[in-house]
Amino acid sequence: MAATIKDVARVSGVHVSTVSRAFSAPHLVNPATRSRVLAAADDLGYRPNRAARALTTGRTFNLGLIVADISNPFFPPLIKAAQAQARGRDHHVFVADTDEDPRVEEELIRTLAKQVDGVLLCSPRLSNKVIERLAEDVPFVVVNRRIGGMPSVLMNVAQGAGLALDHLAGLGHRRIALVCGPAGSWTSNEMQAVATRSQGLDLISIGPNPPTEGGGLAVAAEVAACGATAVLAYNDLLALGLIEGLAAMGIEVPEQISVIGFDDILPGRLNRPKLTTVAMPAAAAGRMAVDLLLQSGGEGTTVTLDTALIVRESTGRART
Amino acid sequence: MAATIKDVARVSGVHVSTVSRAFSAPHLVNPATRSRVLAAADDLGYRPNRAARALTTGRTFNLGLIVADISNPFFPPLIKAAQAQARGRDHHVFVADTDEDPRVEEELIRTLAKQVDGVLLCSPRLSNKVIERLAEDVPFVVVNRRIGGMPSVLMNVAQGAGLALDHLAGLGHRRIALVCGPAGSWTSNEMQAVATRSQGLDLISIGPNPPTEGGGLAVAAEVAACGATAVLAYNDLLALGLIEGLAAMGIEVPEQISVIGFDDILPGRLNRPKLTTVAMPAAAAGRMAVDLLLQSGGEGTTVTLDTALIVRESTGRART
Repeated sequence: MAATIKDVARVSGVHVSTVSRAFSAPHLVNPATRSRVLAAADDLGYRPNRAARALTTGRTFNLGLIVADISNPFFPPLIKAAQAQARGRDHHVFVADTDEDPRVEEELIRTLAKQVDGVLLCSPRLSNKVIERLAEDVPFVVVNRRIGGMPSVLMNVAQGAGLALDHLAGLGHRRIALVCGPAGSWTSNEMQAVATRSQGLDLISIGPNPPTEGGGLAVAAEVAACGATAVLAYNDLLALGLIEGLAAMGIEVPEQISVIGFDDILPGRLNRPKLTTVAMPAAAAGRMAVDLLLQSGGEGTTVTLDTALIVRESTGRART
Repeated sequence: MAATIKDVARVSGVHVSTVSRAFSAPHLVNPATRSRVLAAADDLGYRPNRAARALTTGRTFNLGLIVADISNPFFPPLIKAAQAQARGRDHHVFVADTDEDPRVEEELIRTLAKQVDGVLLCSPRLSNKVIERLAEDVPFVVVNRRIGGMPSVLMNVAQGAGLALDHLAGLGHRRIALVCGPAGSWTSNEMQAVATRSQGLDLISIGPNPPTEGGGLAVAAEVAACGATAVLAYNDLLALGLIEGLAAMGIEVPEQISVIGFDDILPGRLNRPKLTTVAMPAAAAGRMAVDLLLQSGGEGTTVTLDTALIVRESTGRART
């Protein structure tokens, strides 16, 4: 016969409600007590019936995580960190990918809203207005977008763009191309806003572009023709595609053009030249977003995480 | 007032049941009719109520997709293809990541089983026995594992390993290291089985290894010491980590050791040297797995998809 919650309570010497809490709200239970309960449950082969719990509590103990493109290596570290954090608090994470399509994004949010306790919305392409309307149905935390009154986790793109431009200016670059990301991206807008405030630099904005290797390849000729000696790209995939495209035209990085990306993804670390980039705190953002979602009363909280410039091989002195 | 299914039927000139089918079973509706219905629904702002439909049909119109590690670039093309195929048949796909942990895999399958109409289980780490038991609760399609009586999509690893070994033999290599993947991986076992049947080659099996860049870095010294002039690695991440590790020891690829991976992921195409690899048909497998899951009566079907050797820069003549 399968073990019941009463068996676990008896063996671990606690009340049934403590066993229940050890599974459903572990952060409310003393860690030593929780370990005892989990060990007893493990020994007895007890599994909390999530469906029954969902009926009594009205909660599913599942979270939804929506990303713009699961094939962009920026997202997996965020996803892995969010699910590890959620798992530690007995929640599962289901991931859905919008293919960078705002209509698919809206449809997925509506579907997930009925099946999860909350949604982590990462790098949305929907307008603030639509997101605010959808948030009436399910608790949201938004990553990489600031929406008034909604909890959000931001990466300090402005700070990173500032560090990148300072680095390029220090190497003697004056004319710099900004290879932008998709329309509707908060990150891309932040990057442009900082760049246009920079003094003494001649900045050329190119885009919007799809945030992919293909987008970088496609924009290489325009970058080469604009007379810039350096490029700040919306993300590493765009930067890597651009370097490939420039190489195909016989233009060497960093000898002729310096290139900086954003994100710090694995392919950039393996590339030759290794990519100089602004590291985005994706894993920390994933953990923080789960914490904001599972804590009550965080409605208006905005957390901003620092970024860092990592100088590798794709930037060098401006040719004179 | 919100448009109803009757409004859509009237405007598009079809019966209400045809509108219903156009959303719930589009493959049963004439494509021209379906387009007309969808256009009318779009004009009228009609949205089929998925929850109501789920109640009447007992179906959720959601599929679960379980992968061993979402941060391995092998999986995103499979996920994207599966979700595009599912979306075309009005199903959403929710992705869950097991962190290569069989216990997490089992827990996620149990949770998803209650929320979806079927599960695509990719590169499982659970034993066949456990998977067969879990399949009593929810329809399964397994990718990269052959389990009697269960629909499965296989990639022809044996064929790919054969092509890779022939390529190495043709370049004069005789002593070849097999850098294996995780224990419990069908792909890794297939690779080893083929290799041990190869005649005239001296094969050294190294592993099991974690299927990651870190796993490749960690095994570099053992590979260098074993006297092999070529390596066949379980996947591209292992191969790329190995090349990094060998470079750190001053060993050049392909001048001193040739390296072949499996998968054909983006970092391998950007690496210097560009990686020779066995391309795995991940996208085709994702599409096929969705088709098998949504068609009834496919219980025992096994589909095997071809692989292909892509020769790039990481293989060369054996040093003599």
